[in-house]
Amino acid sequence: MLSIVLLGTGNLAKHLFDELKDKGNIKIKQVYGRNKKALSYFQKDALTTTNFNSIEEASIYIIAVSDDAITTVSEGLINKKGVLTHTSGSVAISALPSSARRGVFYPLQTFSANRVVNFKEVPICVEAENNKDLEVLKKLASSLSGKVLEVSSSQRKDLHLAAVFVNNFTNHLYQIGQEICEKSQISFSVLGPLILETALKIKTLSPQEAQTGPAIRNDNGTIEKHMKSLQNKNHKDIYSILSNSIQKTHGKKL
Amino acid sequence: MLSIVLLGTGNLAKHLFDELKDKGNIKIKQVYGRNKKALSYFQKDALTTTNFNSIEEASIYIIAVSDDAITTVSEGLINKKGVLTHTSGSVAISALPSSARRGVFYPLQTFSANRVVNFKEVPICVEAENNKDLEVLKKLASSLSGKVLEVSSSQRKDLHLAAVFVNNFTNHLYQIGQEICEKSQISFSVLGPLILETALKIKTLSPQEAQTGPAIRNDNGTIEKHMKSLQNKNHKDIYSILSNSIQKTHGKKL
Repeated sequence: MLSIVLLGTGNLAKHLFDELKDKGNIKIKQVYGRNKKALSYFQKDALTTTNFNSIEEASIYIIAVSDDAITTVSEGLINKKGVLTHTSGSVAISALPSSARRGVFYPLQTFSANRVVNFKEVPICVEAENNKDLEVLKKLASSLSGKVLEVSSSQRKDLHLAAVFVNNFTNHLYQIGQEICEKSQISFSVLGPLILETALKIKTLSPQEAQTGPAIRNDNGTIEKHMKSLQNKNHKDIYSILSNSIQKTHGKKL
Repeated sequence: MLSIVLLGTGNLAKHLFDELKDKGNIKIKQVYGRNKKALSYFQKDALTTTNFNSIEEASIYIIAVSDDAITTVSEGLINKKGVLTHTSGSVAISALPSSARRGVFYPLQTFSANRVVNFKEVPICVEAENNKDLEVLKKLASSLSGKVLEVSSSQRKDLHLAAVFVNNFTNHLYQIGQEICEKSQISFSVLGPLILETALKIKTLSPQEAQTGPAIRNDNGTIEKHMKSLQNKNHKDIYSILSNSIQKTHGKKL
């Protein structure tokens, strides 16, 4: 039986809590949060506390707070015997106090309120400083997901950077697509099947093979028409820099 | 019964052909291509020709050739009685000869060799110059898809531009994500579930609501770390311009 103390009350904490609370081999002993109201989500199924000094002993501490708060929160836990983990993609394991049994438990997914995530498919990246702690984290990760990976702090940093491109930046391109549609009185939902197929296609083709569009075709006539019809300066700059980058990557010049 | 002559032998022509050839209310009378070898794909199920002068009469001519070739191909069909359509997102209906019954038949999807597309889900944008021709095109479109839309040339131009952002540019971001992963010896497939969830999320949240990441959080520490770790000048520029655009769009400044 693995006992868990969860620190944090945000989206990731809630998603982890919902997944872990019914697992037979796991007991969530306590959820810590600064804000009493935010803890109400967890109260039905676990003990909660706003008092840092009353945190219980557990096999694993999962610190699911903002990156900036990881060091402060973890320093309050240096006397605990369990494995101290944070859940951040971009923070090194060394941000945790060196006297602790340090670890990282990073689920590589985007978590929003009101979106159920299929955890079985979420890659969970674990890191620890010795085999024993690594095995503990792998056990926890395997109870949630079929995709458990050992990933170093340096690799995780790059993975997080790659995730910014494929998730945060892609979502921003969706928003630009929506703005262009709305300007022309077209429902953004018309683009839904294209967006989904773009994401699915790279399961069977590499992004390099899947690339289509005016830039890779060197279709300067269409590129010029597009640049003219874009009104928003941001959108123009993004169109230009991405078209250029596609042409450079695929060996053609504008 | 609608009779069809298909002009072109590329990905879209093949996908349309495969969908149309078994429909009870449709007969593909002929496929035209300049290249005899490229026609072999169609020979088993339809008549084919490389001779422009032997093109048959049909209810609808579907010109599925590159944008540049649309005018030339369509000018060879001015004496035909059927509706003359092209399949391009970015070309106006007026690119077809004014003496013809002009129309547009634009399936909004990305078509690749070796990828089966579920046509029932593909929005098909139709345009014509009179109701009778519009009804003919809608009948054809409805036999393929549950999503048939009447879209003007001006709207279709914007839709195509939006598609460049959400499909071509998004795919390029995937490629950058892959390059970052590979540099760090991580399999790109690890990002698959995140990419899919990013695409699925906008079915229930608007892109504006779904936006996450260092830029919208105004997390300049992480942005600086990312900028430092990016080696490729293109990738740096793209990171910077998209982060800036997210912050401008969401009302924050770098």
